[in-house]
Amino acid sequence: MTGKKATMKDVAREAGVALGTVSKVINGIPVSDKNRRKVEDAIKLLNYEVNTYARGLKIQKSNIIALIIPDTINPFFAAFTDYIESALYKRGLRLLLCCADGIPEKEIDYLNMAANNKVDGIIALTYSDIGAFIPDDLPIVVFDRFFENQFIPRVASDNFAGACLAIEKLLEFGCKHPVYIRFHSVFPGESDKRKSGYLYACEKYQLEPDYLDRTDCEDEPAILKEFLDSHKNPDGTLTFDGVFSHTDYHGDMFKKVLEKEGYRVPEDVQIIGFDGIRRFGGFESGLFVSSICQPIEQLAEKCVEILLSPGDIPLPSLTLLPVEYRYGGTTKEQAE
Amino acid sequence: MTGKKATMKDVAREAGVALGTVSKVINGIPVSDKNRRKVEDAIKLLNYEVNTYARGLKIQKSNIIALIIPDTINPFFAAFTDYIESALYKRGLRLLLCCADGIPEKEIDYLNMAANNKVDGIIALTYSDIGAFIPDDLPIVVFDRFFENQFIPRVASDNFAGACLAIEKLLEFGCKHPVYIRFHSVFPGESDKRKSGYLYACEKYQLEPDYLDRTDCEDEPAILKEFLDSHKNPDGTLTFDGVFSHTDYHGDMFKKVLEKEGYRVPEDVQIIGFDGIRRFGGFESGLFVSSICQPIEQLAEKCVEILLSPGDIPLPSLTLLPVEYRYGGTTKEQAE
Repeated sequence: MTGKKATMKDVAREAGVALGTVSKVINGIPVSDKNRRKVEDAIKLLNYEVNTYARGLKIQKSNIIALIIPDTINPFFAAFTDYIESALYKRGLRLLLCCADGIPEKEIDYLNMAANNKVDGIIALTYSDIGAFIPDDLPIVVFDRFFENQFIPRVASDNFAGACLAIEKLLEFGCKHPVYIRFHSVFPGESDKRKSGYLYACEKYQLEPDYLDRTDCEDEPAILKEFLDSHKNPDGTLTFDGVFSHTDYHGDMFKKVLEKEGYRVPEDVQIIGFDGIRRFGGFESGLFVSSICQPIEQLAEKCVEILLSPGDIPLPSLTLLPVEYRYGGTTKEQAE
Repeated sequence: MTGKKATMKDVAREAGVALGTVSKVINGIPVSDKNRRKVEDAIKLLNYEVNTYARGLKIQKSNIIALIIPDTINPFFAAFTDYIESALYKRGLRLLLCCADGIPEKEIDYLNMAANNKVDGIIALTYSDIGAFIPDDLPIVVFDRFFENQFIPRVASDNFAGACLAIEKLLEFGCKHPVYIRFHSVFPGESDKRKSGYLYACEKYQLEPDYLDRTDCEDEPAILKEFLDSHKNPDGTLTFDGVFSHTDYHGDMFKKVLEKEGYRVPEDVQIIGFDGIRRFGGFESGLFVSSICQPIEQLAEKCVEILLSPGDIPLPSLTLLPVEYRYGGTTKEQAE
């Protein structure tokens, strides 16, 4: 050795394993016994100091990670919270819960706690504008949103691919004219790519883009009814036969509006939502609508893994996980 | 004064306000400015030492309260968690979340943290058997369960009255033969009183008790189908016309089983569940079934209030909050 402190790369080279394997061992993520021993031996041999290199968790700190989330009432957030808690617990860490909906001071409170070492890091799923308050050196991972600060690692589902998949599934199940509906937050986020994916799929499959894209939140069923009325042929049939809804929530809402107007789902109109929200939450409950499902457990696991990554591995600024289609009663064919 | 330390009662007498008002001021719960000033003046005059009397939160502690809950995926638990977080935050306290489902060691971990003053108190909604591990002097409030230890204050909904209300509503809406269905946990809890309430209502209204009461969790829809088959008249009609379901979840499940068998809800069979679970969580979403709704926000608030009660007020061992009926599409008449 040159007298410089050993890096994680040195450990990987010495142990004859990939850099990711060293990272896993350090973060307590299971690897084969053989590899674990190799890494541990190399760490000893090189006197590699894990903690001085750990980006987030310096030793002798609180062992508490704060999760900032709008609420735990929304079933997506509720499940995400649950999986974050499990991912932390199995690493000996505890979760401080901050339900910040509509209270930016609360989020800033928690950012300050982190700055003061009262919590060791933050996982944030936030729709308020706290970007400017995040110090550059704070261990933080952001889910779904993006901020100006390019150094904040982000985790999300592959929303773009998911939107394409929704349109492909609708076409596969016989739709000729799928539309897209969306009510969205004013804050830019990864889920905006659902619209981009829809537009891309339209071009790819030579479909005329036709969508509802609103930020209104006043009377959404009335807006959906208006959209419906503007898509009626003289004989009462609809000019569309498929709906890709930005969320399961609005997919379910549109289903109710369609049924109230005498249209049958999926016979007249097929619907695919996004999120994979389950009725009553648990995995034994069905989906509200056929859906492009986000891998909530894996997303939570990835957030924690990245938060705890040692600092000498360059972190990807954006990590996207794959989504999948699942049948939920609003399409004509079940996927296998 | 007699030289003894002033008690909260002395403060109330001196201030000329009710004991509850003093408690509110000490716990940071809003009262009129006038009363607040009176209490603060009396505290100063009598040299009343708030903190030596506080049952739970001694000053200079962590200001963290642990919530032990099975998970946050179940929508009832998810909403309860959210409201607990709010109730704590507005008192300057933070929430450490412990999702303990199936992992009693995790709960015991948190009990130990409390014993070691790393958290200041515990709010527990648990279905495992940790009763024996709870020290007598631990600031703890238990939701819904009861333990051998009689000194643990408990908070719950008035399940007994709620069950009676369900039967009364079914009778009011024209049912002649309401049945009760339940799949339950092996651990005794307050919700057992839903069955007692059903039996009491049967006696009161001269109905023949007829119920399904199982702990099986294997294939619940099949068990419900069996129950249905055993209640068919030779002409295919059913011997019951109303269902009081122990939970909304099983009410919704029974609705699906009934509809699959060709019965209409609410035309042939009316259903009232229990809990008040909302589709997609938020208050703008509808209920899954007509339901006896638990006041989740008030229950959470009450848990926190009792946890923080000063020690010189005798604590009720059981605090029950009222429930109410709400229409959710599975009964024939909407309640006003």
